[in-house]
Amino acid sequence: MPELRQNIITRHWVIIATERARRPDDFSRKEQRASLPSHVPTCPFCPGNEEKTPAETLRLPGQGTWRVRVFPNRFPALAPTGAIVRTHAGIKRSMTGVGIHEVIVETPDHGQTLATMSNEEVERVVEAYLQRHGAALSAPAVEHVTIFKNHGAAAGTSLEHPHSQLIATPIIPSEVRERLEGALQFYDDNGRCIFCFTLEQEALDGVRVVEENPHFIAFVPYAALSPYHLWIFPKRHCASFGCIGEAEKSALAQILRRLLARLDRGLNNPNYNFVIRSAPKESEAVRYYHWYVAVVPRVSQTAGFELGSGMFINAALPEESARFLREVKVD
Amino acid sequence: MPELRQNIITRHWVIIATERARRPDDFSRKEQRASLPSHVPTCPFCPGNEEKTPAETLRLPGQGTWRVRVFPNRFPALAPTGAIVRTHAGIKRSMTGVGIHEVIVETPDHGQTLATMSNEEVERVVEAYLQRHGAALSAPAVEHVTIFKNHGAAAGTSLEHPHSQLIATPIIPSEVRERLEGALQFYDDNGRCIFCFTLEQEALDGVRVVEENPHFIAFVPYAALSPYHLWIFPKRHCASFGCIGEAEKSALAQILRRLLARLDRGLNNPNYNFVIRSAPKESEAVRYYHWYVAVVPRVSQTAGFELGSGMFINAALPEESARFLREVKVD
Repeated sequence: MPELRQNIITRHWVIIATERARRPDDFSRKEQRASLPSHVPTCPFCPGNEEKTPAETLRLPGQGTWRVRVFPNRFPALAPTGAIVRTHAGIKRSMTGVGIHEVIVETPDHGQTLATMSNEEVERVVEAYLQRHGAALSAPAVEHVTIFKNHGAAAGTSLEHPHSQLIATPIIPSEVRERLEGALQFYDDNGRCIFCFTLEQEALDGVRVVEENPHFIAFVPYAALSPYHLWIFPKRHCASFGCIGEAEKSALAQILRRLLARLDRGLNNPNYNFVIRSAPKESEAVRYYHWYVAVVPRVSQTAGFELGSGMFINAALPEESARFLREVKVD
Repeated sequence: MPELRQNIITRHWVIIATERARRPDDFSRKEQRASLPSHVPTCPFCPGNEEKTPAETLRLPGQGTWRVRVFPNRFPALAPTGAIVRTHAGIKRSMTGVGIHEVIVETPDHGQTLATMSNEEVERVVEAYLQRHGAALSAPAVEHVTIFKNHGAAAGTSLEHPHSQLIATPIIPSEVRERLEGALQFYDDNGRCIFCFTLEQEALDGVRVVEENPHFIAFVPYAALSPYHLWIFPKRHCASFGCIGEAEKSALAQILRRLLARLDRGLNNPNYNFVIRSAPKESEAVRYYHWYVAVVPRVSQTAGFELGSGMFINAALPEESARFLREVKVD
């Protein structure tokens, strides 16, 4: 019998389709793994081609050879300057597309990935996320900042050199609003943060936990929308990614790297997206929301049913996805 | 300057990324078109293999050679029998996965598609949708019925023989609930159906309209979430797909076929999904909701930003998508 599970934050139902259940390695990437060179002369993100990108907004470390670079996207989804102008006539509601769209180059080495880099290198990427998150939030037009990564063509990237992106919007996006509203309702009913509650319950249950360190816990959500869907929750309550301290920064780099290494080895370098879900500017200090990271391997294809209903069909049991990933050996 | 547009029904914002704008034929499928044979002996949906599928729930026409067949999915996402049992403990809210999952084989001819079939043939498919929609709604466990089609691998299908699917769920899915709530709010504010209002405004505006006949109008939505996204609205108000009459059935077949033919010729047989968005069983007679068909060609890739924000980035102006499709010659 298939099972319906509800994400109690968003109230979205997921079908856990046990009748269609497959073995964990059925989701593994089938193609032979291509080993990428460390340097590609034509790659705009490789060292030596710095003048091919727009001017840097951040370089780490501050002196010597760069390890992480941040600059505006050459083809930005939103324009960095201009006034916010809203119009509304009949069915047509629009506003000018003002915001920030940046690229974070994670390493000078074309052939590395976050899964193969060192803790220290990944920590520098997290440091860049933090600095640019803060800078973007301080822009007057910005209401919310989304930091995300697309790994592989099926996850929506066309450039293979390791990079993440930041898009700062002049509105609060629907996925964020939905979580804020769900979390506020839980706070009304129970007087506590639904994410803190989930974290506590997942730690007690244990069966969906994949990684844990003193500051973070990573698990396959109870109502995972697809195989190997993962959440990384900070143990300390805070609505904004911007509030993490030094020890947490290092711990986040470690747990993110280890999770991505488990995916990389267990599923043969799958395509994936991750996103840092942080509160909007106006809600950075609320008690009912809690920032976190969602990682979604793109190992199945959404189709007309997901489009029409918003329900996902997950052909893997979340508890089995977690067990499989726990058993992958990583450093 | 990019533009943000809001779908006034769901309140989702879309980025119309004019800085990234591409020519219409950049979205055209690049691979050489494969001509499929009319009959494939190993295809479970081809004539002669009827015993390889579960027992039929519908065959059209009633006598002689079949033209359309409907039967339960061999690997159903939901189980056809069993009791609805709900459980809720802590973060874990679940229910038994009871529902209906059927396959509608649209033609005995393996090499046809809805874009190349005759009006009469497509009308028979619509007739099958109608009959099975009604039958599914009459099942006590069912609250909502989604009818959809996945065309091509990137749209989530693995079998190339032309077919659609029906999934009837024991809950009202989130995408449906969201539209009901948005439409009810508009009805509260304005005393009328937001879909009737949209239809009227789109017909007046004209620039996004692609097809029209006495019973239906098809247009690229003002806040289209991707290039060539299309809506087919019935001109007569009704919340449920189940209410259409004989003349409307024929008119729907005609407009659907012509739209799919425009996509097929204009974009070289793109992958696409379509879904019939109909009201839940308990809301079939409401004044504020209006059934319609959404067609989404899969010509761009969603990535981490869409996942994180729920905002789509559309690299084509809806008005230009509409003009391009209007200019494609079809019978």
